[in-house]
Amino acid sequence: MRQEILDLIAERGLDAGDKLDAESALSKRFGVSRPTVREALKSLEQEGVLNAVQGQGRFISSMGSLAVERPITRYESITEVLTALGYEIVTAVLGVAEGEATAVEAKALRLEEGAPVIRLARIRYGNDEPLVVNLNTIVRDALPGSPAHRDWSASLTSALEAHGHHITSSVARITATELPPEFVQRHALSDLGPWLLVQETCLTTSGRRVLYAEDYHRGDAIAFNVLRHR
Amino acid sequence: MRQEILDLIAERGLDAGDKLDAESALSKRFGVSRPTVREALKSLEQEGVLNAVQGQGRFISSMGSLAVERPITRYESITEVLTALGYEIVTAVLGVAEGEATAVEAKALRLEEGAPVIRLARIRYGNDEPLVVNLNTIVRDALPGSPAHRDWSASLTSALEAHGHHITSSVARITATELPPEFVQRHALSDLGPWLLVQETCLTTSGRRVLYAEDYHRGDAIAFNVLRHR
Repeated sequence: MRQEILDLIAERGLDAGDKLDAESALSKRFGVSRPTVREALKSLEQEGVLNAVQGQGRFISSMGSLAVERPITRYESITEVLTALGYEIVTAVLGVAEGEATAVEAKALRLEEGAPVIRLARIRYGNDEPLVVNLNTIVRDALPGSPAHRDWSASLTSALEAHGHHITSSVARITATELPPEFVQRHALSDLGPWLLVQETCLTTSGRRVLYAEDYHRGDAIAFNVLRHR
Repeated sequence: MRQEILDLIAERGLDAGDKLDAESALSKRFGVSRPTVREALKSLEQEGVLNAVQGQGRFISSMGSLAVERPITRYESITEVLTALGYEIVTAVLGVAEGEATAVEAKALRLEEGAPVIRLARIRYGNDEPLVVNLNTIVRDALPGSPAHRDWSASLTSALEAHGHHITSSVARITATELPPEFVQRHALSDLGPWLLVQETCLTTSGRRVLYAEDYHRGDAIAFNVLRHR
């Protein structure tokens, strides 16, 4: 819903101070209930995209007028990010293996060093271009059963959800980097330029850390937006 | 105040579920008024770092337990970012010139293409290492007088403030990139690896866009943190 409203703002080219359609009109347009619309509008207000003026309606803020397409404060799966950017996605699984948590993984996931984990390496292609290299470390018991019987090209978020682990937030670190050299060599990924690295610990609704991901996003294809306040 | 509290959490190694000192104790510890402490605590609650429990106090959240040192959602000058990371800062001014807004600058600053601007290029060094390349475009009339009479190595935020332009927010786009090649050549900045590019339009309290900055942060030295929610 939130995205649909942002799309509408972009589509209409609404600018700072322009008025957004009333709740009732949006509810009708998108065929969803008014509470659903209201919740999305509230979230956009909190993000600073909309200003509500008592008795007058909601207006595009001076910040919201710059479309915040992929706000980095929003937890989204890579599938969601790439789909929203208009890419056709294909996923290549490069490897999946059981292993023991390294110091870095243990710290991120609040495990003992050496605790059992599953490691999954994938490339996400958009329109046949490699766009995201996605290295995951999953707490072993969050996905029971033999790794051999799963389709690892499918959504990891959904697989975790099927076991009751609903990821609703994450703590992420963002920087610019190259791909790990051994990885570049093994998978012929040289000359794709700098990558935006998001190192992310994902938390479930109950606060459990089940997934640590290192996502390398092609800098020449993917950017994130953010509203910053003093 | 906010930073002092985050430092205290980091110093004590407080973890998810740990209780933070009471307002009164923090006020005493830092020698500031309780309203000041309360405001900082509120902002940390909003960021999801602290959870307030009615009648019991404030607790470190599961997300806050991972220290969010440089939250990307916080508008900070480069000076603030680098100082907080413990660097001794030196600023080299590479060039300052009056010019006419390009299409990109005009769009970011809501000017007519060709409108008068000031362009300022700087390198910020931390402990003698070039860490941030900072390219600014300033709306010409925001800083009256001849550019020749200003000390451009000083804080640009402060200079704008002295003319009544208080920057309190920004809209930023983040990606990974190389430095512009002509810039690398002219200023001998090769082989410093990938850069985290933040393209940022800064807004004053009155919503005016006075500054557009392209900041290239050394990926091997600078990272930002963010809490993400579904």
